Amino acid sequence: MSSAEGAPRRIAFLPDEVTVEVTTGETVLQAARKAGIHINASCGGSGVCGKCRIIVREGELRGGISAKLSETDLAGGIRQACTATAAGDCVIIIPAESGRSRGGLTTGIAERHRAKLHEYDIEELRRAGIFQPPLEKLFLELPRPSPVDNMADAKRVVQALWNQYRERGMTIPLPVLRKLRRVLREDDFRVTVTLARPVKKKTGGNYLVNIQAGNWTRRNFGLVFDIGTTTIYGQLLDLNNGRILAGAGDYNGQIGFGEDVINRIIFAETPTGLAKMAELATGTINALINDLLHRAAVDRDEITSITIAGNTTMTHLALALEPHSIRRAPYVPVSTFFPPIRAGDIGLDLPLHCVALLFPAVSSYVGGDIVAGVMGSGLYRAEALTLYVDIGTNAEIVIGNREWLVCAACSAGPAFEGGGITHGMRAAEGAISDFDINPDSLEPMNLTIGNMPAVGICGSGLLTIVAALLENGIIDRSGKFRRDLDSTRLSEGRSGYEYLLARREENGAGHDIVITEVDIENFIRAKAAIYAGIKTLVEEVGLRIGDLEQIILAGAFGSFIDLDAAMAVGLMPEIDTDKVRYVGNGALMGSRMSELSNHIRRDVVEVVGRMTSFELSEVNSFKDQYIAALFLPHTDLSLFPAAAARADLQEKGPP
Amino acid sequence: MSSAEGAPRRIAFLPDEVTVEVTTGETVLQAARKAGIHINASCGGSGVCGKCRIIVREGELRGGISAKLSETDLAGGIRQACTATAAGDCVIIIPAESGRSRGGLTTGIAERHRAKLHEYDIEELRRAGIFQPPLEKLFLELPRPSPVDNMADAKRVVQALWNQYRERGMTIPLPVLRKLRRVLREDDFRVTVTLARPVKKKTGGNYLVNIQAGNWTRRNFGLVFDIGTTTIYGQLLDLNNGRILAGAGDYNGQIGFGEDVINRIIFAETPTGLAKMAELATGTINALINDLLHRAAVDRDEITSITIAGNTTMTHLALALEPHSIRRAPYVPVSTFFPPIRAGDIGLDLPLHCVALLFPAVSSYVGGDIVAGVMGSGLYRAEALTLYVDIGTNAEIVIGNREWLVCAACSAGPAFEGGGITHGMRAAEGAISDFDINPDSLEPMNLTIGNMPAVGICGSGLLTIVAALLENGIIDRSGKFRRDLDSTRLSEGRSGYEYLLARREENGAGHDIVITEVDIENFIRAKAAIYAGIKTLVEEVGLRIGDLEQIILAGAFGSFIDLDAAMAVGLMPEIDTDKVRYVGNGALMGSRMSELSNHIRRDVVEVVGRMTSFELSEVNSFKDQYIAALFLPHTDLSLFPAAAARADLQEKGPP
Repeated sequence: MSSAEGAPRRIAFLPDEVTVEVTTGETVLQAARKAGIHINASCGGSGVCGKCRIIVREGELRGGISAKLSETDLAGGIRQACTATAAGDCVIIIPAESGRSRGGLTTGIAERHRAKLHEYDIEELRRAGIFQPPLEKLFLELPRPSPVDNMADAKRVVQALWNQYRERGMTIPLPVLRKLRRVLREDDFRVTVTLARPVKKKTGGNYLVNIQAGNWTRRNFGLVFDIGTTTIYGQLLDLNNGRILAGAGDYNGQIGFGEDVINRIIFAETPTGLAKMAELATGTINALINDLLHRAAVDRDEITSITIAGNTTMTHLALALEPHSIRRAPYVPVSTFFPPIRAGDIGLDLPLHCVALLFPAVSSYVGGDIVAGVMGSGLYRAEALTLYVDIGTNAEIVIGNREWLVCAACSAGPAFEGGGITHGMRAAEGAISDFDINPDSLEPMNLTIGNMPAVGICGSGLLTIVAALLENGIIDRSGKFRRDLDSTRLSEGRSGYEYLLARREENGAGHDIVITEVDIENFIRAKAAIYAGIKTLVEEVGLRIGDLEQIILAGAFGSFIDLDAAMAVGLMPEIDTDKVRYVGNGALMGSRMSELSNHIRRDVVEVVGRMTSFELSEVNSFKDQYIAALFLPHTDLSLFPAAAARADLQEKGPP
Repeated sequence: MSSAEGAPRRIAFLPDEVTVEVTTGETVLQAARKAGIHINASCGGSGVCGKCRIIVREGELRGGISAKLSETDLAGGIRQACTATAAGDCVIIIPAESGRSRGGLTTGIAERHRAKLHEYDIEELRRAGIFQPPLEKLFLELPRPSPVDNMADAKRVVQALWNQYRERGMTIPLPVLRKLRRVLREDDFRVTVTLARPVKKKTGGNYLVNIQAGNWTRRNFGLVFDIGTTTIYGQLLDLNNGRILAGAGDYNGQIGFGEDVINRIIFAETPTGLAKMAELATGTINALINDLLHRAAVDRDEITSITIAGNTTMTHLALALEPHSIRRAPYVPVSTFFPPIRAGDIGLDLPLHCVALLFPAVSSYVGGDIVAGVMGSGLYRAEALTLYVDIGTNAEIVIGNREWLVCAACSAGPAFEGGGITHGMRAAEGAISDFDINPDSLEPMNLTIGNMPAVGICGSGLLTIVAALLENGIIDRSGKFRRDLDSTRLSEGRSGYEYLLARREENGAGHDIVITEVDIENFIRAKAAIYAGIKTLVEEVGLRIGDLEQIILAGAFGSFIDLDAAMAVGLMPEIDTDKVRYVGNGALMGSRMSELSNHIRRDVVEVVGRMTSFELSEVNSFKDQYIAALFLPHTDLSLFPAAAARADLQEKGPP
């Protein structure tokens, strides 16, 4: 790589005269999208459809060449935007057949706002003095036994821990005692011990979970897992520096037994159902662990701890706790706190010394995943009145600040994870994750995860598709397609009108990828439930939507969420986009912090006690709020002043 | 039973005119022995030999009738002493053919002294405010969940424990969480929880080890076990009142792999040896548990805890800890402290909730059994300078008081547990446990455990046999039989001279029961090792034997030890017999107290730290002390003034 590679580069697009800064690896297509410029791209950005032709006027591009381009094309500076990256500053012309001049648009998102990913910083933890993994490896050099110093092996270790690290109050469990003699003598009384620290000194002493011959302090790894109803995500961490070495996700193996928690609980109530549910969850986790270990070249024995956050039902099923009462009023879980356990005790294929830590829950429907998000995002110590929304199969909402916290869950359905959507999928390679449309030609601009041929639509794709269709007047405020548009992209399919996103021959799915009116209805129901939940909760504590000072978003939206789109469709209240942060998977983020800081584990007990849970189904106004939100963006446009100000929406008037 | 049954009764023996008080169930033979009166009794007190004929002159006897007695005999008031008990006050004549008048004796023990069994008193524990079983059952009546009170099941239990018992800081482990929902609802939210308390509040919180539907507080049981090298003893306790409901013992299943700890360790060092050793120990314990549960009609699930005390090697083997370094200088065990574990984790056939607590050790050769004895006997808080001796395969010696404690172990060999003795056996039914001899006829007076036909000789029997033979001049001070005595009881057997204790046709062994000169040699070596150990240890701390103010005896001597016999043969230093206490099995006693009082468990940590261990093999004077003690009672008679004063010993002079 040349030294210029890492420097920021700029691409100026003509004829619009818009310049954007690009980062390494970002394609010209992605840059155009960021600038709000439309380039036709059906295949999802993999060079197959050949529609995204651009002309290099100044500067140099890398890539952007395929069999779709002739020698003459290439000589004329024509490239494909979807596979081209800037080698330095460039000026790019978008020819008329490839795009549409921004100048001609009166609707459309002029400037796109995305929530910045907020990541915890290990140095921040260190500076705050709270970088202290609950499980730490310490190297000990022990004096050899002699006639005048013949204390027991265990006492020798305990004494060295005090002498070298001022650590005391040590319990050495049986499995460690069983190998102690051998390990001590294997490398001449030089050993690495793995210490598990209690949450509070008061509630227990240190625990010596493992001992190894020699110095292995550099090899200390942890796992974090988010057990979602639809998907399970995991990451492998280096506990010495907090770095994520690998990440992986897959559908929860339980998914064949129902898409929502209620059906899972019903199955778990059958004679062998609970064991089966537990086995399927841990089976998925075990497969992901294998993948993570392989990719990061970490040995299974080097895993010291695993932190798991999941919704309350998922946590119950993974631990084989009876979930029966969760689905029946008054909705009582077995427990909201879970003791540290040996990972092997819940069927995880991890070494005997590996400790599993589970995030506590608040109630039956506000689980450990949300608590992890509240901890990981720092909401629990926020000054500003903050809305935290985690969008998965269920959407969980937390409102509050460092003084108080209220929370609720609402069943959004699986639309945001690709469920109930004809060609929905989770955020994985080939998922359409960003979208724009040419309102004249109705040609799509599909952007996919990994710039791979499109195979389906993930949550963030769905959001931008619906927003683009709405903003360009292709669907109305009730989500129905305009019937008067003449385009091969629009047709009547098996479930009503649909829009063709990517033709079979241009995508990686093996069939046409479409979005149907039924899909859009499902999306509207999902976003309505979330917005109604937010509004109900805000009003229950005597506030108004307008009082919110900050929004933290979490969930399965891929790497960025398009804030303008989210506000345009009424998923989120309109707020200054600078006040929105995206934390990615909040459950994983909180779990990572918990793996790195015992202080988080200590504070969580107090925070959970502070989180007041509301049962939305028992709040009378919730249903009305929901019905009012079943339009794009909402029945009451005064709640969405920016949307209301947009001319074309105003012209159509209220539905 | 008549009301007179429980009242004390007195038996006057003629012609000696000695009266003794007897207790219910005590036979006339036992009463005579207590009074120091000889009655011939070969068979061991089971009515078989018919030698112990007595005549009832006044009062009434029960039993004492067998086919050996004719109608005329019975009409004449003749009964057999071995099976007769007093129905009220009696006067008994011992005919010349059955016994020997005390009046004619110049040797023999005129008054017999036995160490009084010292038992802890549960009321004493209560009064001292330290009756608090580490595992306690508490009954809870919980409010039912409702829409306004829908906290998690676990929190409901925790809150009730605080409201009803002011107990807090509770961990509920996974197995309890897994059944929590069902158990709570089985008897309408009335449950019994089993609480495990930490040794110190500082080192951990309460632990909820079990939950049962309904009120089961009355059914809370514990087990105590002493894992000896030769024998394993167990008892079943009612934890509500400390009562011993059943006791059982058996040879340690490891015994086929060597009689001493060294051979066991050598075997444990083979590839599968350690697992085998652990399995054999737990196998023996499991069989004894079955027996105890059956006999006390206690359900396995009602067992809450098991406390185990054993010597260091036995504890290592039971836990499958590598004992390798114990047998090699500088004699390093893996650990002297052992964490509480789940009983099932070491292969004990006990319920999942059952907690196993192991007594800590001091060193490789002063184990948890001795520590248990020091705790259970109260030595650790004694004002008087006390000698504590536990006699098993190894003899352990502790000297000190509340201020300081020194300890040592010496290899006495298995003689006191019946090992290395031709017809030795452990203290079980049919074991000759007490003995006297008619110096004229050399007829034996055998008393057996359970008044059963004799099958062998246990430790206390061996001691009284050797003492009686010595006191009556049948053996000399080096333990050799006088060759000039003409009796069918004395003969030359395969291993030298021997004395016939019980003929085959009169006993339950199926062969003659004898004691040989080799047996006596083994006994002398055992008692010499113990005495030498005591003397060496006393002198190492700058004291003399005469400074000892109190002796506490523990070990496998059956229910009582004959102090006069012990001093006569030189096993114990001569001391006022009122200052000797017998605590039975010290390991079991300490374990019982530990099962009933968490304070004992707390104090033991400090006491172990206070016990200084001496390695006798590294003290130069020990070997000389041992050689000097290889006589009866000792080479230096000035150490045994009472023995020296006895005429017949004086006449023989020093060996």
